[in-house]
Amino acid sequence: MPEFLKVKTAEEILEVIENIAPLSAQTVSVQEASGRVLSEEVKAPEPVPHFARSTMDGYAVRARDTFGAGESLPALLEVIGEVAMGQGAQVAVRPGTAVAIPTGGALPEGADAVVMVEYTQPLDETAIEVTRPVAPGDNVLGIGDDVAAGEKVLERGWKLRPQDVGLLAAMGMEEVRVFRRPRVAVVSTGDEIVPPETRSLPPGKIRDINTYVVAAQVAEAGGQVGTVRVVADDLDALEAVCREALAGHDVVILSGGSSVGIRDFTIRVLERFPGSELLAHGVAIRPGKPTILARLGEKVLWGLPGQPASAMIVFTAFVRPSLLRLQGVEGVQELETNVRRAELAQNIPSVHGRADYVRVRLTRHKGRLAAEPVFGKSAMISTLSKADGYVIVPEHVEGLEAGSLVHVHLFSTP
Amino acid sequence: MPEFLKVKTAEEILEVIENIAPLSAQTVSVQEASGRVLSEEVKAPEPVPHFARSTMDGYAVRARDTFGAGESLPALLEVIGEVAMGQGAQVAVRPGTAVAIPTGGALPEGADAVVMVEYTQPLDETAIEVTRPVAPGDNVLGIGDDVAAGEKVLERGWKLRPQDVGLLAAMGMEEVRVFRRPRVAVVSTGDEIVPPETRSLPPGKIRDINTYVVAAQVAEAGGQVGTVRVVADDLDALEAVCREALAGHDVVILSGGSSVGIRDFTIRVLERFPGSELLAHGVAIRPGKPTILARLGEKVLWGLPGQPASAMIVFTAFVRPSLLRLQGVEGVQELETNVRRAELAQNIPSVHGRADYVRVRLTRHKGRLAAEPVFGKSAMISTLSKADGYVIVPEHVEGLEAGSLVHVHLFSTP
Repeated sequence: MPEFLKVKTAEEILEVIENIAPLSAQTVSVQEASGRVLSEEVKAPEPVPHFARSTMDGYAVRARDTFGAGESLPALLEVIGEVAMGQGAQVAVRPGTAVAIPTGGALPEGADAVVMVEYTQPLDETAIEVTRPVAPGDNVLGIGDDVAAGEKVLERGWKLRPQDVGLLAAMGMEEVRVFRRPRVAVVSTGDEIVPPETRSLPPGKIRDINTYVVAAQVAEAGGQVGTVRVVADDLDALEAVCREALAGHDVVILSGGSSVGIRDFTIRVLERFPGSELLAHGVAIRPGKPTILARLGEKVLWGLPGQPASAMIVFTAFVRPSLLRLQGVEGVQELETNVRRAELAQNIPSVHGRADYVRVRLTRHKGRLAAEPVFGKSAMISTLSKADGYVIVPEHVEGLEAGSLVHVHLFSTP
Repeated sequence: MPEFLKVKTAEEILEVIENIAPLSAQTVSVQEASGRVLSEEVKAPEPVPHFARSTMDGYAVRARDTFGAGESLPALLEVIGEVAMGQGAQVAVRPGTAVAIPTGGALPEGADAVVMVEYTQPLDETAIEVTRPVAPGDNVLGIGDDVAAGEKVLERGWKLRPQDVGLLAAMGMEEVRVFRRPRVAVVSTGDEIVPPETRSLPPGKIRDINTYVVAAQVAEAGGQVGTVRVVADDLDALEAVCREALAGHDVVILSGGSSVGIRDFTIRVLERFPGSELLAHGVAIRPGKPTILARLGEKVLWGLPGQPASAMIVFTAFVRPSLLRLQGVEGVQELETNVRRAELAQNIPSVHGRADYVRVRLTRHKGRLAAEPVFGKSAMISTLSKADGYVIVPEHVEGLEAGSLVHVHLFSTP
């Protein structure tokens, strides 16, 4: 068996991810909808506002009664009432009259504009002078001026933000259709790996790091963490865990030990699942080469390298976009939400002919972002904790120079 | 009573926020710690790794046995055993011998370096030639090389990211001390406001938007949304709601109706709470002037303008930093997490003498970010949903020119 069966470039993997279909849709309450992705467009069920509202404190008038009004020749209007906040207007505006109205108040019948209080002078208890003319519609938000009934307000695939939730609430919507969030199983494999809660470490064993890091990254990417397991490098044990994980989850993320054999284990387990489709076995980046992407029907299986730094880079570059895509986010290739531009603080050497993903730390210097390469053995967790993300030295480039502007891909949403 | 009692600039309000003390500390499990802020520094309870590990596949050797080795004159070593993954080495390396070792394997006694398999040639079943010398420590991660026992690894005030959680797990930590997250009550006031779930709107009434938007923003900022209420503009009712909210929450966020009287209501309610301290009444920005910030003992009360756009701007500019500060985040003034640099797509006119916060939409054009001003009446919710954030036109600047580089403050974490 060749070491890697289907090596792909980063671009090719992202193209595969782009073609993953979103999960099924579900109905959620509008209060819980922020951060979710619409599975169908939203049309306004009713107009907003549903009555003509004043946008200023002042007087509701017939605009024509103010035509030609000015400081030297004000228009004289009789004040015949007042609109109370939150109530329908009790009195209609007739020619030559005005009704006091607060911001947000309902425009009385007969009125077609509001004169701001600043441009009026009380003459006596029941009369005002208007010193500036208004046109029909001035300082009024008419029925449907904000949102017309039936208007398409949000697109399928739109990720709802707090302000969108406000818009849905304004239209009286209580529920909305969104794509499901993926349920994700996180599995670490390796004979040397023991659960992190192991108090006293047996000889040769280390605590698992990847389940904790991957689970936290899954949650940040909107996934729902389900089963979290550590298993030894045993083909039958791994198959059993995968079978159970695939049954109850949309995505299974394995991270392998660092030895060569583990990758074969994942491939051999996949062979035991009829209909499984190996989409990538090997990706042409460093670190991160031993990455596996497979589909089993509607389910997605990722195999990540065992080194925590490699696993975190591959998660950020590929697994996160795949989880977003399953939630219905469009155009994951163009996603720039977790990318920052920064000035490289130091030269990064690189070997021509492979894409290097180099860990960097972001620092702020006089309001500008700088990216400092974090060097150190990739087996180290302390250097990973010192890094905020990575910069990519492309395949055909031999290193990056200090002072150049780079894109930093963040491991985590700040 | 003057309209605004204590008008502050944006900078002054941020300084007040900077001085808010974090909430008390609590213990959380490491699995739940991502996104939380450390209330005390973390020192390594044990070294990582706790045994010397190979970082390569190869042979554990005594470095001196390889000195002078080369292609033309390889060093000859007897292979006396193999280290199994996840187990202590069963055999010690003596002069002239080597032990096969996988990446991550435990270095046997007597060995002080690992020769990569690439620089060896099998001679027969029990012997190898080494074609490159190694120095002591080469390809080995010694005890505590990653993290020394007792070393300070993370500072008080550090916001934990997935990679930091990995570091805690590696050190065998199961729990960690973090600052509490604020419990936040969200209250909308206004005679014209009805709960969003109201099916058929009575005359003059509109659905509340702010509780939904503010609650979603609170959750994004790491706060825990508790009571959510809509109350009428009634002094006694507002006092009762505030009293209850203050009893069970760390922060109360009121958003007022749009009429002038509401602001006074909040002030008058505050006067009924002995020991309440008015920190700001009015902030010199537009929109957002009618903003109130008060402390009642350890509790924080915000009064936001009733217009959804104004409330969202004030939340983003001031309330969010205050919630982060309560969670122990340091230097909220320098926070740039939700700021993007973009090119202004259109001129923004502004009046000299006040800081204008202008809503903009972010668009991507050939990989570059552009900020398009969103104009429209501030009472509109549809224009708020079209905006991603705001740019600030400072007090002493008369507008911004198209093409200039601006900072966009995002309403929401993307």
